Order: sequence, then C-alpha cells, then structure tokens
Amino acid sequence: MQPSSERSTVRRLPERGAYDRDVIDQILDEALICHLAFETDQGPFAIPTIHARLDDVLYLHGSHASRMMRSTVGEQVCVTVTIVDGIVAARSAFHHSLNYRSVMVFGVPRIVDDPEERLAAFAAITNHVIPGRWDEARRPNEKEDKGTKLLALDIVEASAKVRTGPPGDDAEDMNLGIWAGVIPLALHAGDPIPAPDLGDGIPLPPSVRRFTT
Amino acid sequence: MQPSSERSTVRRLPERGAYDRDVIDQILDEALICHLAFETDQGPFAIPTIHARLDDVLYLHGSHASRMMRSTVGEQVCVTVTIVDGIVAARSAFHHSLNYRSVMVFGVPRIVDDPEERLAAFAAITNHVIPGRWDEARRPNEKEDKGTKLLALDIVEASAKVRTGPPGDDAEDMNLGIWAGVIPLALHAGDPIPAPDLGDGIPLPPSVRRFTT
Repeated sequence: MQPSSERSTVRRLPERGAYDRDVIDQILDEALICHLAFETDQGPFAIPTIHARLDDVLYLHGSHASRMMRSTVGEQVCVTVTIVDGIVAARSAFHHSLNYRSVMVFGVPRIVDDPEERLAAFAAITNHVIPGRWDEARRPNEKEDKGTKLLALDIVEASAKVRTGPPGDDAEDMNLGIWAGVIPLALHAGDPIPAPDLGDGIPLPPSVRRFTT
Repeated sequence: MQPSSERSTVRRLPERGAYDRDVIDQILDEALICHLAFETDQGPFAIPTIHARLDDVLYLHGSHASRMMRSTVGEQVCVTVTIVDGIVAARSAFHHSLNYRSVMVFGVPRIVDDPEERLAAFAAITNHVIPGRWDEARRPNEKEDKGTKLLALDIVEASAKVRTGPPGDDAEDMNLGIWAGVIPLALHAGDPIPAPDLGDGIPLPPSVRRFTT
C-alpha cells in the first residue's frame, strides 16, 4: 500500500514504514495511550490521552475546558501511538536502538454530537482500556455526557513505523567480542488492587480477571 | 514550587500538577522514550524518540536529514514523556482512568557542536536506555559522530502531572455492587535474545544482566 500524503510518508529508514490498515489498526488497538500533538499561540503541545478506534475513526475525549480540546477542533493534529517491544543492544553505541511499533494519524478532527455515535465511542474508549468493561460499569449519565467533548479523527492519512529483530552492527564490529542482542520489553499487569472502599463480597469481574491470567 | 510559564501550568485537574525538579527529573530519567512535538507547514507532528537528561539539559539526537531534526532547531518544541502505572477501574464508565506520571518540557532547542558536550550526551543517551552500556560498547567514530545531529533543550519550562491511587467514584455509585480498583502495569524485561551472529563464548555483560534480575 502507498502512503496517502507527503506528511504520512515515512522518510527516515523508509523500509520500516507500513501503510496497510491491518498493521495500523493492530498497533492503534494495542497501544494503551496516544500522544496528541496540536499547535497553539505558545507553540506545539504533545499531550498523552486515551484513544479508541471504531472501524475507520479514532476517538479522543476530554473536558470541554481543556487546552487539548479547545486547541484541536477544526485544526490540524497528529495522533501518535508507540509500543516499545525491546531494547536493541548493539556492539557499537551508535547502533543501539529500540524495537517498537508506532502509528501516526494526521488530520482535522470533528466534534461528535450525535448521541448514538457518542455512546458507541464512549463504549469503545472504555473497552479499549479494559476489554468488556463497558457492560459491567455504570453508563454515563446526562451530566457526565454533557461535560465530555468527543473528537473523531478519520484514519485516512496514517502510517506505521516498525522496527523488529536483532541489532544491525557494522561488519567491522563483529569481532570486537562485545555482546549484542535484544532485551524484550512488554507491559505486564500485576495483581488487581481493590478500592479501599470496595464493599464485601464483590468478586473480580471477568474484564479485570482477564488481566491476571 | 510554582510553574515557570503559562504553558507549563497544569490546568486540567491542577491538583495533579508538580513543578519540583526532583519529581520532573525522576520521571524523565525513568521514561524510556519521549514524544517530541513540533510544527511544520503541514501541521504538527509528535515523533517518538529516545531522550536523556544530564543535569538541567534534555538531549535528543537524530539524523541530520530527518524531518524531526530539520523542523526543530530554533523553533518551539514540546517534549512529553509518559509512564503508565496502572488502569483505574471505577464503578462508573466516566471515572475510568489511568494512573500515570508524565512530564512536559517546553522551549527552543539548540544544536550541540562542542565535541565534549556531544560525547557526554551520547554517553547519557546510551546509558539512559541501558545503564552502564556506554563503557561496554564501541564508541562513535568520526563518521557516526558527523552523521548525528544533537539537540539540547534546557529544562526550564517544565511540569509534571501525576495520577496515583484508587478510583474516584461518586458517592451515589458506592452501592452498585460493581468491582472497583486498580490494575498495576509496569514494563517488564524478558530474557535477553543474543544476536544470531553473536560469536561463541561471549557472556551477557553486566549492563544487560541487570535487566534479568
């Protein structure tokens, strides 16, 4: 697949670029958070926030009052997600690197007002972080719904960049006797910690139990 | 401590903001990567990259040819690091959240040309990812040094934002019988994978061994 625009074209190490929606979607779905870049009078910001994908749309939510929400409607943004998969230890300092999977999505987000789309997006955001949690939790009430701004960004201008595999040392460094390889990294879940005010006899729900196995 | 500028003031949930350099430095040092936000004619970008801190300076490196390096010299940037510490499962969908520690550093980076500062920064970047690795690896040669652009951003306009602890459910949701709590998350290292072309009899070096214990 070809990139859809100049800015979504991977230029550094283009062999690491990918434009297939399958690759892009899998990374967007796995990454817990994104960083949303936007411009202001004071310069650019990159703010970490939770995202969720539904088909061809990326949803972001926040308070109406937030700088993030006030600065992004009708403006160009860049949403970047990055998953670190490992540390690449090379023989040379220069060839040290990370194995990673990242996606950048560019465009102008729209505000979502439609109640049905909003509810579906809120469900997607909740389930993005804890799959299946939407069906267990108390749904948003009117006040919560009114207080939340929801942005939708079409996944049209997007690219993935992926590094995998061993270090790429230079031929002349092979006999230096220096160890080289990859240290795999992954986000692991620990044992769930019940809220201090959790009532007696409330068992771990299926959505949370899934993290412990 | 007070924020040093308007843009580095945490506005949403200001009780989560911190401006102490100790807090800021600890988060910058622990976070493996940052996202660098900058502006271009085509809109903003947020690009994941490796950073390292030395005292009051944040260093970023890249190829001279990269969009990131060409778009940031003499321009306003925002460097954001985010560490996710846990998933906050509340009784209500609305109060779901993440526990996290993030830092934003704003400013105009300068190019580092001084050979001594460059070497110290390259050492810091290598050791940021694998503490102690600089002393084991082959140092940069002239070609590698010449091919690498190094940026320095003074840590002056910076803020941290931290969420910890249990969910903050509303009083009226306490008796819904829904489980609430935190799922701790942390980046774990797996067993190091030697490079396929690693010579026989080269043991794991101390720097890499530290990840396995």
